[in-house]
Amino acid sequence: MTYNFKNDYTEGMHPSILDALIKTNAEQQEGYGHDLYCCKAIDILQQKIRNPRADIHFISGGTQANTVVIASVLKPYESVISAGTAHINTHETGAIENTGHKINVAQSLNGKLSCKDIQAVLDLHTDEHMVKPRLVFISNATETGTIYNKQDLKALFLFCKSKGLILYLDGARIGSALCSYENDLNLAELSEFVDLFYIGGTKNGAMAGEAVIINNETLKAGFRFHMKQNGALLAKSRIFGVQFLELFKDGLFFKLAEHANEMALKLSRNIAQAGFQFLYKPVTNQIFPIFENKIIENLNKKYGFYVWENIDKKTSAIRLVTSWATKEEAVDNFIKDLKYCS
Amino acid sequence: MTYNFKNDYTEGMHPSILDALIKTNAEQQEGYGHDLYCCKAIDILQQKIRNPRADIHFISGGTQANTVVIASVLKPYESVISAGTAHINTHETGAIENTGHKINVAQSLNGKLSCKDIQAVLDLHTDEHMVKPRLVFISNATETGTIYNKQDLKALFLFCKSKGLILYLDGARIGSALCSYENDLNLAELSEFVDLFYIGGTKNGAMAGEAVIINNETLKAGFRFHMKQNGALLAKSRIFGVQFLELFKDGLFFKLAEHANEMALKLSRNIAQAGFQFLYKPVTNQIFPIFENKIIENLNKKYGFYVWENIDKKTSAIRLVTSWATKEEAVDNFIKDLKYCS
Amino acid sequence: MTYNFKNDYTEGMHPSILDALIKTNAEQQEGYGHDLYCCKAIDILQQKIRNPRADIHFISGGTQANTVVIASVLKPYESVISAGTAHINTHETGAIENTGHKINVAQSLNGKLSCKDIQAVLDLHTDEHMVKPRLVFISNATETGTIYNKQDLKALFLFCKSKGLILYLDGARIGSALCSYENDLNLAELSEFVDLFYIGGTKNGAMAGEAVIINNETLKAGFRFHMKQNGALLAKSRIFGVQFLELFKDGLFFKLAEHANEMALKLSRNIAQAGFQFLYKPVTNQIFPIFENKIIENLNKKYGFYVWENIDKKTSAIRLVTSWATKEEAVDNFIKDLKYCS
Amino acid sequence: MTYNFKNDYTEGMHPSILDALIKTNAEQQEGYGHDLYCCKAIDILQQKIRNPRADIHFISGGTQANTVVIASVLKPYESVISAGTAHINTHETGAIENTGHKINVAQSLNGKLSCKDIQAVLDLHTDEHMVKPRLVFISNATETGTIYNKQDLKALFLFCKSKGLILYLDGARIGSALCSYENDLNLAELSEFVDLFYIGGTKNGAMAGEAVIINNETLKAGFRFHMKQNGALLAKSRIFGVQFLELFKDGLFFKLAEHANEMALKLSRNIAQAGFQFLYKPVTNQIFPIFENKIIENLNKKYGFYVWENIDKKTSAIRLVTSWATKEEAVDNFIKDLKYCS
Repeated sequence: MTYNFKNDYTEGMHPSILDALIKTNAEQQEGYGHDLYCCKAIDILQQKIRNPRADIHFISGGTQANTVVIASVLKPYESVISAGTAHINTHETGAIENTGHKINVAQSLNGKLSCKDIQAVLDLHTDEHMVKPRLVFISNATETGTIYNKQDLKALFLFCKSKGLILYLDGARIGSALCSYENDLNLAELSEFVDLFYIGGTKNGAMAGEAVIINNETLKAGFRFHMKQNGALLAKSRIFGVQFLELFKDGLFFKLAEHANEMALKLSRNIAQAGFQFLYKPVTNQIFPIFENKIIENLNKKYGFYVWENIDKKTSAIRLVTSWATKEEAVDNFIKDLKYCS
Repeated sequence: MTYNFKNDYTEGMHPSILDALIKTNAEQQEGYGHDLYCCKAIDILQQKIRNPRADIHFISGGTQANTVVIASVLKPYESVISAGTAHINTHETGAIENTGHKINVAQSLNGKLSCKDIQAVLDLHTDEHMVKPRLVFISNATETGTIYNKQDLKALFLFCKSKGLILYLDGARIGSALCSYENDLNLAELSEFVDLFYIGGTKNGAMAGEAVIINNETLKAGFRFHMKQNGALLAKSRIFGVQFLELFKDGLFFKLAEHANEMALKLSRNIAQAGFQFLYKPVTNQIFPIFENKIIENLNKKYGFYVWENIDKKTSAIRLVTSWATKEEAVDNFIKDLKYCS
Repeated sequence: MTYNFKNDYTEGMHPSILDALIKTNAEQQEGYGHDLYCCKAIDILQQKIRNPRADIHFISGGTQANTVVIASVLKPYESVISAGTAHINTHETGAIENTGHKINVAQSLNGKLSCKDIQAVLDLHTDEHMVKPRLVFISNATETGTIYNKQDLKALFLFCKSKGLILYLDGARIGSALCSYENDLNLAELSEFVDLFYIGGTKNGAMAGEAVIINNETLKAGFRFHMKQNGALLAKSRIFGVQFLELFKDGLFFKLAEHANEMALKLSRNIAQAGFQFLYKPVTNQIFPIFENKIIENLNKKYGFYVWENIDKKTSAIRLVTSWATKEEAVDNFIKDLKYCS
Repeated sequence: MTYNFKNDYTEGMHPSILDALIKTNAEQQEGYGHDLYCCKAIDILQQKIRNPRADIHFISGGTQANTVVIASVLKPYESVISAGTAHINTHETGAIENTGHKINVAQSLNGKLSCKDIQAVLDLHTDEHMVKPRLVFISNATETGTIYNKQDLKALFLFCKSKGLILYLDGARIGSALCSYENDLNLAELSEFVDLFYIGGTKNGAMAGEAVIINNETLKAGFRFHMKQNGALLAKSRIFGVQFLELFKDGLFFKLAEHANEMALKLSRNIAQAGFQFLYKPVTNQIFPIFENKIIENLNKKYGFYVWENIDKKTSAIRLVTSWATKEEAVDNFIKDLKYCS
C-alpha cells in the first residue's frame, strides 16, 4: 500500500469537526446560510479578522469561490491580472473566462506578483480596444508553496488602491501560509490588506467549504443573489457553519496548519541534508524537491505524489504535500526510503 | 419552540449516512470523483436504473445540477421549455439565463407539462429570429407536489424524440415521487424515459449531493470538464460517494421517502377529514391545504411553513413539507392544533 | 411584381443620405467613432435632446443596440422587465439571455407597460432565490404600433426612479412614434423621461445605424469598452456619423417619419371606411387590419405583408408597414384592390 | 494637413462599390441576408473558393466575425490557441473570453503559428482541470504583416485534422496576403486548408463587411441563429451583398489589394535603400521600419502612423499601413521627407 503525499484533501475531515456534525445533526435549522452555526461562525471570523463589518459567505470549494467572487465584482470588459502559475489560469478549466473575463498573465517570480509586474500589464492596456485590468488575483500560499509577507502584501494593496484595482487573495492554503516559519502576518493583518479573500477549509481539515470575506464596502451588494445564481448557496448550509465554527472557535484551524507545516519541514530538512535541491524554497506544506528520475521511480512504488517539472533529462522536481492528517511515521518512512534509494 | 414544516432540508443527514462517513473518514482516497466510494455508488446506481452505460456524476445541490446539466447540452441559441412554476424559472435566480439560455414558459396544468403544451411553444418558434427550443425540463415530483405517471412520461419522451428535443428530469424530490401512492413507475422505468435526470439526495436524507445521470450517449462528452469549469467537481468527492452508496445499497433512499410520504398522507387525510380543501391534490411530501387566514396565524405560532398563495381575502393555501426526519408526534400535534383552531 | 409592405427596411437609404456619403467618401477620417461626422452628429443630437452631457454612441442595428446597452448596465443577477410582445423577448433569438440576464415578462396592454404591470413583477421578486428586476424595457412605437404619450412616459420614469429601476426605451421606430397624430412628446421631452434610449436610423431612412443615448451619469462608464467587446465599434464609423448628421441637421428624420405615418394613415382610414376592424388602433407606421382569409389570399398576390394573428377560422389580422420610401401610388392601388376583393 | 498611414480604413469605400450602392438603392429587397445581392455574392464567392457547398454569411466587422464564428463552434470548456500577437488576444477587448472561452497563447515567430507551437499547448492540457484546446486561430496576413505560404497552411491544416482541432483563419487582410510577392496560395487553395475563415472587406475597399465562409460541414448548423443572437444579422443586408458582389465579380478585390501592396513595397524598398531596418520583413500592406526617435518626431508632423515598439532608447519601430486608397504622391512625399529628415 502506498502512502499518499499527492495533496491535502486525501482524508476526510478532522475528528473534532466530525464530532461537531454528529452533535448538531438532529437539530432543525434554517437553510441557505441562515442557520445558527453559520451566524456564529461569521461572528467569530469577524472577530478574528478584526472587522465586524466584513461580509462573510461560505462556498463549497475553491474554484467556485474564485469564480463567484471574481464575476461578482467585474464589469463585462474588466479583466483579472494573475501570475501565469495561478490556479485560476491553469487548473480551473477556464472558469474565469467562462464568466466572461480575460486573465492578463503578468510576469512573476516564484508564483508571486509584485507591483512592478502589475504595472507592466497596466502599461499595455491603454484604451477600449483592450480589456481594462481591474482585479489582481494572488494566492497565499502560492501554487509554488511560497508566501507573501507583510511588506509584500501591504505594498501590493497600496499599489492597487492607487490604481483603482481590487486586490483579491485566494486562501485555499492560507492556514499553511500564516503558519509558515517565514510568515510575519496574522489573519487580521492579512485581511486589512486585501479587498476580499477566502479562507480555505477543504485543504485544512474541513470536508468542504471556503469562507469568502468581503472587506470592501463597494463590493458587497448582491453577493447572495450572485451565489444563488451560480449554484453556490447550499440548502443545508449548517454544514459549513458547524465546520468553520469548530475550526475557529479555539484555534483548531491554525493547529492543523502547523502540523502540516511541521511535517513538510521535517521532510524538507531531511531531504536537504541528504543533499538534494528544491525547485522553490520550502516554506509551507507544499515542497518541490529535485531528484534523479530513478529515485523518483523507486519512491513512487511506495508513495503517491505528482512529478511537477522535468529539470533535465535525468532529474525532475516532484511535489510533496502534507496536511493536518499526515502521519509522522509516513514522513519518517519517506526519509528512510529516500536515503536508501539514493 | 415551533416545529418546522417549511422544507425537507431542515435536519442534517440520516444517521446511517453519518455512520458511513464516520467509518470511512480516516481513509486516504483520491479526489474529484475518483475515490472508491463514488465508483461503488455509480456501480449500484447503474444497476438500479438498469443501464450499465449511464454516465453518473455527483453535484452538490439542485441549482448547480440543473445549471451544469442544461448548459452542457445546449448551443448558445438553444432554449429550454419549462412550466411557469418550474424551479429553474422562479427560484434559481436566473441561473439558466446566466449560462446564456432562454427559458420558454409553456402553459401547464398543476405544474406538469404535456406534449400539447410543448407543441404550442414549438409552433411559435419558426426561424432564426427566435431561439430554438431544444431541452424540455420537467420535475418529478413537481413544485406543486404532483407527479408524472408512466403514461405521462413515456408520451413526453416519445414526443421529444420525434421532435429532436432532449428530455431532462429534475429529481430533487424523485424519492417522494416514486413512493407516492399514485405512482406506477420504478426508478429504472423512469430512467428509460428521459435523456438525463438527477436523483436528489439533499431533500431525502443526504447532507448534500445530487446524482446526475446521463443516459443519452450524445450528451456525455466533456461533462467533467464542464463540471470543473462551473466549480462543481468537489475535491473530497468521497462525501458524495459514501452518501449515495449508503442511500442505495439496501434501499434506504426509498425507505426515507416512504416515511416522508406517510407523514404527508397522515396530515392530508386528517386535514381533509376536518373539512379543508387543497390547492393541488396531495400525493407526495408537499401538500397545499387551504385555511382561513385566522387559522393560519394561529398555526404559525407553533409551526413553521410558507404561505403559498392567497386564495381570496379570507383564505390562503399554505405549504407543508414532510421529510425522512419528520416526527409523527409533530404531525399528530399539528392535526390536534388544527382541530382546536378551527 | 408585388409591392412590399412587409417592413420599413426594404429599400436602401434616403437619397440625401446617399449624397452625403458620396460627398464625404474620399476624405481621410479617423475610425472607431472618432471621425469628424460622428462628432458633429453627436453635437446636433445633444442639442435636439437638450442634453449637452448625454453620451451618444452609434451601433449598427437594433438587436445589437439592445443587447449592448442592457448588458452594460446590469449585474449578473439583475433582470429586465418587458412586455411579452417586446422585441427582445420574441424576436432577438434570446440575445438578452445570451448576455446572462433573465427577462421577466410583465402583463401589458397593447404592447405597453404601466406602473402597475411593473409593480406586479416587483411584488413577486422578494429575495435572492429570484432575480432582481433592474431595468424596464419599453419600445416607442411598440411592436403593436401603439405609442406612449407624455403622461404615460413621465409616470413610468418617476415610478422607475422611486424603485431604483433603470428605464430604457427602444426607439427603432421612434420617428414614427413622435410623428404620430396621437403623440404629445417631442424628442427632448422623451429623452428627459428615460435613463437611456436609442434613436433608430435603420427603419427611418438610414442604411444602418442606431444612436444610443445615455442620459443617466451612473450608466456611462466604460460603454466604449463594452461596445468593442461586443463587436459594435465599427472601423469606418464615419458611415454612422454622416447618416445621422444628414438625418438631424435639418429635420430630415422627422420628414421621413411623417411620410411613413401619412401613408399608414391613408391606408388605415380607407380600410376603416371599407368597413374593416383593426387588431390595434392604427396610429403609427405599422397597422394591423383584420380581413377575411380569402381577401388576404387575394391581396397577397400583389402585396407583400405578414399575417400577424389568426382571429378566428375565417379572419386574420395582417401587418402592413409603411416607410419613408412607400409610394403613394402603391397605397392607392392597395386600397383599390382591397375594395375590389371584398 | 497630415497624410494618414495609420490604417487601411481611413477612407470611405471604393468608387465602384459606391456606384453599385447608388444603382441598387431604390429597389425593394428582402432583409436579413435574403436579398438578391447577398445571394449573388454568395454564388460568386463559392465559385472563387471552388466550394459550392460552403456556407457564406456577411458580418459587419472583424471583431464581430471572430467572436460569432468562434463562439458558434466551441463547447463551453473548449479553448482557442493563438499567437500572443493575435488580434483576438490583444485588440478585441476580451471579446472571445466574453463568450466564455479561454485563449491559450502559443509561442510564435513573427506572428505565425507552427505545428510545434500548437503541440506544445496541447501537451500542457491533459485533463478536465484544464480547458480543452479545440480551435486554432491564425491570421493571414498576420498582425505583423507576415504571411502563411501553401506549405505552412497545409501543414497546419493536416496537423489540426490529426488532432481533432478546428483551423480558423482571420482574413481581415487576406487580400494583401494573397497579393504579396511572397505568396504562393490562391483563394481556393487557402480555403481548402481551413475549416472556416473570413474574407475582409472593411480593410480592402468596402465600407463595412466581412464574408464568413464555413467549409466544414459539421460546423454549419444554426449559424444564422447564432448571428442573430449576437446582433450580427443586418436588416438591410443588401449592403453587404452589393459590396461583395462588386468586389468579386471582376476581381476588383485583388486589384485593390495589389495597389495597397505596391504602395507598401515602394515605401519599404526606399526605406531600405535609405539604410533602415525593419522589425518584420515587409511583404504585405503593413510595414514596420525602425527609425531614430528624432526622425519619427519629424515625420509625425506630416504623416499619421503608430509607434509600434521601442527598440532601444533612441530608436523605435513605427507601423505604416497602405490601402487601396493610398495615393502614390503621398508615398513619394514620405520617402522624400524621410531622406530629408535623416
